[in-house]
Amino acid sequence: MTQALKVGIAGLGTVGAALFRAIVSRHKLLADTCGREITVSAVCARDKTRDRGIDLSGVEWFDDPAELARKGDIDVFVELIGGEGDPAHSCVAAALARGIHVVTANKALLARHGVELAEVAEEAGVLLNFEAAVAGGIPVIKALRESLTGNSISRVYGILNGTCNYILTRMQKENMGFDECLAEAQRLGYAEADPTFDIGGFDTAHKLSILTSLAFGTRIASDEVYVEGITNISIEDIHAAEELGYRIKLLGVAQRTSTGIEQRVHPTMVPLGSMIAEVDSVTNAVTIEADILGELMLSGPGAGGDATASAVLGDIADIAKSRPGHQHGPALGRPAKYLEPYTQAQMRSHEGGYFISLKVEDRVGVFAAIAAQMSKNGISLESIVQRPANGSDLKTVILVTHATTEASVREAVEGVRGEGYVNGEPQVIRIERTKQ
Amino acid sequence: MTQALKVGIAGLGTVGAALFRAIVSRHKLLADTCGREITVSAVCARDKTRDRGIDLSGVEWFDDPAELARKGDIDVFVELIGGEGDPAHSCVAAALARGIHVVTANKALLARHGVELAEVAEEAGVLLNFEAAVAGGIPVIKALRESLTGNSISRVYGILNGTCNYILTRMQKENMGFDECLAEAQRLGYAEADPTFDIGGFDTAHKLSILTSLAFGTRIASDEVYVEGITNISIEDIHAAEELGYRIKLLGVAQRTSTGIEQRVHPTMVPLGSMIAEVDSVTNAVTIEADILGELMLSGPGAGGDATASAVLGDIADIAKSRPGHQHGPALGRPAKYLEPYTQAQMRSHEGGYFISLKVEDRVGVFAAIAAQMSKNGISLESIVQRPANGSDLKTVILVTHATTEASVREAVEGVRGEGYVNGEPQVIRIERTKQ
Repeated sequence: MTQALKVGIAGLGTVGAALFRAIVSRHKLLADTCGREITVSAVCARDKTRDRGIDLSGVEWFDDPAELARKGDIDVFVELIGGEGDPAHSCVAAALARGIHVVTANKALLARHGVELAEVAEEAGVLLNFEAAVAGGIPVIKALRESLTGNSISRVYGILNGTCNYILTRMQKENMGFDECLAEAQRLGYAEADPTFDIGGFDTAHKLSILTSLAFGTRIASDEVYVEGITNISIEDIHAAEELGYRIKLLGVAQRTSTGIEQRVHPTMVPLGSMIAEVDSVTNAVTIEADILGELMLSGPGAGGDATASAVLGDIADIAKSRPGHQHGPALGRPAKYLEPYTQAQMRSHEGGYFISLKVEDRVGVFAAIAAQMSKNGISLESIVQRPANGSDLKTVILVTHATTEASVREAVEGVRGEGYVNGEPQVIRIERTKQ
Repeated sequence: MTQALKVGIAGLGTVGAALFRAIVSRHKLLADTCGREITVSAVCARDKTRDRGIDLSGVEWFDDPAELARKGDIDVFVELIGGEGDPAHSCVAAALARGIHVVTANKALLARHGVELAEVAEEAGVLLNFEAAVAGGIPVIKALRESLTGNSISRVYGILNGTCNYILTRMQKENMGFDECLAEAQRLGYAEADPTFDIGGFDTAHKLSILTSLAFGTRIASDEVYVEGITNISIEDIHAAEELGYRIKLLGVAQRTSTGIEQRVHPTMVPLGSMIAEVDSVTNAVTIEADILGELMLSGPGAGGDATASAVLGDIADIAKSRPGHQHGPALGRPAKYLEPYTQAQMRSHEGGYFISLKVEDRVGVFAAIAAQMSKNGISLESIVQRPANGSDLKTVILVTHATTEASVREAVEGVRGEGYVNGEPQVIRIERTKQ
């Protein structure tokens, strides 16, 4: 049997501790499967005295992750520190440059420095694996990087943030308001004390930018993602959506268009009865539309210590099964030098259906004026619903459009507002067509 | 750049021709991604003169697949001949023994000879890849073999046959009878002229036996699968299921129990609102329950020339990315010598809920007698529905049980029949709990 694979874990939080436990408790299974043993030879964390329920005797301890990366007696550096900057960035770069494989769960790091790190890994002839960085335990990186090789991808979209999906599911199923559901998510540990990064859509954007690169063979462009979060979504929107045959999900969507690639994160109407509409709570799901394969959907736990540890362990096992000096597959699916520049499609050119909800004064001619603005902008309507607005003498008018452009919708909505009878902010939610 | 990978394709039917076209038309993309070119250097089919819309000039032609396997100037032998016996079996064995990698889409071959062929591949130090053999283009083999390494699997289940799912979906959505839907499936090319292999559940059983081995690390036991097909399912069953909150799908289920492993294929009630209930038409789906990861579901096209070719191409690309003499991963997830014997759980010990539909004479005491039989066998009921049977003076009594055993249900149903007022065959359909 080949020599044991020595793993160094930087970061012993929930994921790091779960990974440590799994490697110890599955020792024989892993050795049988991989054809060699996997051992944790070194770890690094902030506080050596903290009780993590794991036995660190015989494992070299480092206080500084940079020391572990540069000097640890390891074959694989597992980065579970988090954050796009240092120490995570410099540690990963140092380990790769030294010829040590890296496994990371750090989406922020990859969104910012992924291409640069892939180049370092390729030059050093080592692997940079990051299955856990997107959609937790779901093997979407492997699907894009390996299974779909040779396919041309037209669209990849998914539910990539468990916090948002938990809140939207709870609102819909239990008729609760946004604030109440957020508080509940925080109580259960599904949302941070400061939830902005999740509910603002930024976490989804990071993950999406990594998927975009893998799907389209372009350089990662995490700054060029159109982002809307879910803080605007009301229980009334959710009810109206259901009545019209839709469910609201926060999707990340990357799509090839004639003018470039769209990367967008926003609340989205998906058809009731589609599989993605049934993805509940903290579960994540990703759909890939590929020209040879067709449509592939993967769903599973998108976060949590164990699910993330499982993905990290799969990445480590791939390294254990490969042989030194003969590594398998570039980090971003193709060698970094072949990645194409990212060409952003303008959001105004986005084509699709729209749900538009307007609170309007209840007077003669309002409806006709709305219809005229839609018509003027070339928008044809799939359905129109009018009903009394909650607790006021206003009316809510809901329009569902056939496919049109973002520019037309923005213009039409501005036109309607310009006529002076719209109260408050109009709600505009994009509709995404799905196949399954 | 490393030398081109030379592929030999045995069988130029729909899949073979689609694969050939993909390798030619994606030449640059494949070379960029894999770090080396992929070329088709030899092919074999029955009729050289047939127009397949592909240009075979410069490609060596073999009339006999055994010649291609034994003498072709190839690095990879792609077996698309089909069938568990020869020539597929001897060709694959010969190619592996000669040190040539093999990619196959042949589930029957693997169900019968998979362990033996895995041993030959391991001895020769070459890869035996078969992503396309189960669930077409869905990367479930890779998920089990690589992504979930280190996880202990408790259950794997799925919709593995597009023909059956097409028929059941059509019956449910369009209120059509079984025979009519089968005829429609045959007209559209989704079912064979002799559909027994699909609708009898045998195709699902082959695929399931391969998943079982990968999930549980056991030797393939395709003869030890409990199989019921869908020919018995009536439109009345489908309606009754929907009313009670279920949809009927033909599932293959492999599950670890205290007495062994259950492998079963049968029509199954899955809850409405679960993701698997929304898997429609020829789409396939597989759910894996893993102890570290949690529940993972994959769905996509389960058949068709292109989807199958995509999976075959992914397998070829994995070989192209690896380096000769340093191969990656045993065929069945762990080296064949470590595979455990398969221990079959008895079907009578199966535990779960049951849907039981009985046509009974409409007389006093019938209902009480049924209830007494259930009670006598320790079966508690979740719901009971009674209604007039179609076009007769009989009544239909439908029972949905809480979790019980197969043995209890069989005994209870025999007990009820023994009392003499049941008309025709009782319908018994197992209920499968799902998480997502």
